[in-house]
Amino acid sequence: MNRKDISLGIDIGGTNTAFGFVDKDGMCVIESTIPTCSNEPAEMLLKRLFKEADALYKTVSDEYNLIGIGIGAPNANYFKGTVEQPPNLNWGVVNILAIVKEYYDVPSAITNDANAAAIGEMQFGAAKGMKDFVVITLGTGLGSGIVVNGQLVYGADSFAGEIGHTIVDPSGRECGCGRKGCLEAYASATGLRRTVYELIATTNTPSRLRDICFNQLTAKEICAAAKSGDTMALEAFDYTAKVLGLKLADTVAHLSPEAIILFGGLALAGDLILAPTKHYMEEFLLPIFRNKVKILPSALHGGNAAVLGAAALIWNEIKIKNKF
Amino acid sequence: MNRKDISLGIDIGGTNTAFGFVDKDGMCVIESTIPTCSNEPAEMLLKRLFKEADALYKTVSDEYNLIGIGIGAPNANYFKGTVEQPPNLNWGVVNILAIVKEYYDVPSAITNDANAAAIGEMQFGAAKGMKDFVVITLGTGLGSGIVVNGQLVYGADSFAGEIGHTIVDPSGRECGCGRKGCLEAYASATGLRRTVYELIATTNTPSRLRDICFNQLTAKEICAAAKSGDTMALEAFDYTAKVLGLKLADTVAHLSPEAIILFGGLALAGDLILAPTKHYMEEFLLPIFRNKVKILPSALHGGNAAVLGAAALIWNEIKIKNKF
Repeated sequence: MNRKDISLGIDIGGTNTAFGFVDKDGMCVIESTIPTCSNEPAEMLLKRLFKEADALYKTVSDEYNLIGIGIGAPNANYFKGTVEQPPNLNWGVVNILAIVKEYYDVPSAITNDANAAAIGEMQFGAAKGMKDFVVITLGTGLGSGIVVNGQLVYGADSFAGEIGHTIVDPSGRECGCGRKGCLEAYASATGLRRTVYELIATTNTPSRLRDICFNQLTAKEICAAAKSGDTMALEAFDYTAKVLGLKLADTVAHLSPEAIILFGGLALAGDLILAPTKHYMEEFLLPIFRNKVKILPSALHGGNAAVLGAAALIWNEIKIKNKF
Repeated sequence: MNRKDISLGIDIGGTNTAFGFVDKDGMCVIESTIPTCSNEPAEMLLKRLFKEADALYKTVSDEYNLIGIGIGAPNANYFKGTVEQPPNLNWGVVNILAIVKEYYDVPSAITNDANAAAIGEMQFGAAKGMKDFVVITLGTGLGSGIVVNGQLVYGADSFAGEIGHTIVDPSGRECGCGRKGCLEAYASATGLRRTVYELIATTNTPSRLRDICFNQLTAKEICAAAKSGDTMALEAFDYTAKVLGLKLADTVAHLSPEAIILFGGLALAGDLILAPTKHYMEEFLLPIFRNKVKILPSALHGGNAAVLGAAALIWNEIKIKNKF
């Protein structure tokens, strides 16, 4: 029997590492998760991971043939195959692809999670058939993956696509990067929480959110409050969308993308964030770009979206190779 | 005798149209200029232009063989070959390449002047050998051409690269585009003049520029004042560089280019603008990008830089074709 090709997608996060086997149509055949154990060296994680992955693969290897391994990880350098000083992992600088090669004799690739999401959307999701688009991942922070002429933009040093660190206001909120006023300090789950606290401090608007301390306040809670009509929560979403719309207008002025795709936790708030972001972006757009650029939700379904993105890295490399 | 290949570069401006024949090394063999006559239809300009160009070509056609025609023009659409509602020309929408084809049976291409400058720098100038860079044209306004993976970024609709219309301050200076606070309202010859007038209005700093009315004040005059130590002129350059540096840091966060090249009239102010722009950009950069991105002056010499850029369009298309 002819076995179908399959790619292993791995999403390394600060807490958990998810992995799964994904076919060329974006169907995740089987997947699992292990704890990352952020204090362990990368070698230990990969040893545990590949043991689990091998066991999982055996259950499907009659039908499927492993053709490559794609990895999404924080601070990944696509050109070098390394992960460099990831903020939540005690790894320093480590060549991940060199370790992968000790275990498997198939092509492998690594990039950061937002770039993997962009490749995933292009292969399987909302950007199918598009050549120019941007993916914005709205989670704890704000990541981005940019595609131009059908190719991911890595730039001169592989670190392109840091839209979360474009500057909204040089004397604005402190950002985790050490500077002030970065977009991700406003438009992210954390930014939304900060906006709620700013509104609590500066207005008298009544809100059920006044009873929750900052460290316990989640974006999910703010989303639930907004959906139940809480004025302050709605105002916080509106402000988040306004700042995001302003900076996405700058992104459009650079790249003139066909669409901007919102991905990740905060994007699940749906039209609480999509509709006003589109509204404000249009307001701030140069007239020639108006009513051209779609704001879309992620369409990576049928499995862990980050795993699909990582697996798509391999399908994308194969597509590029077959083109020439 | 074997004739050498040569490309005709045409730079259509609001007042004059310059053209010249350029070899593959960026040497302009012969060039000339005619008035654009902005009230005439495009057909008339091209008729006059090609009559002059033919006469010029005859003087060198023993040695050179015309292989293509590249055109830089305002509001040019590379995909369609059109110029659409150019601000200073009474043209409406006109298919320029269709008209060119009535005269010549060689490949032709059209794009806006900033994109042509970017291709010119890549072929002949400061970006030789680079795959990721940005050209900023500092003239009356601020234009930009972006190159990623060795390809010019046109985006979904051919209008990418409008960095002059990224927003510095949504409640800032009125821009010609109808919005407020665009970068070109600060960082351009006009922006520099506006800054001088803002300083005259808001400070008591003595300056010889207080004796010049706005409509007679030129960037050249401000440059001369700064070079002679005029405090206000120096302050105006510093402010221009600060705003430009802030927004170029956003550009780097998107694209991680190897270099940003400053081109055009205001860039001729040299280290009055280059050095402080680099200084402020570094201050506003995300740490991972610091001390990596060069700020360079244009290196298009040996002829009209805009004509070299337009001619380079054809050399670039030939290079792309030969690659496959």
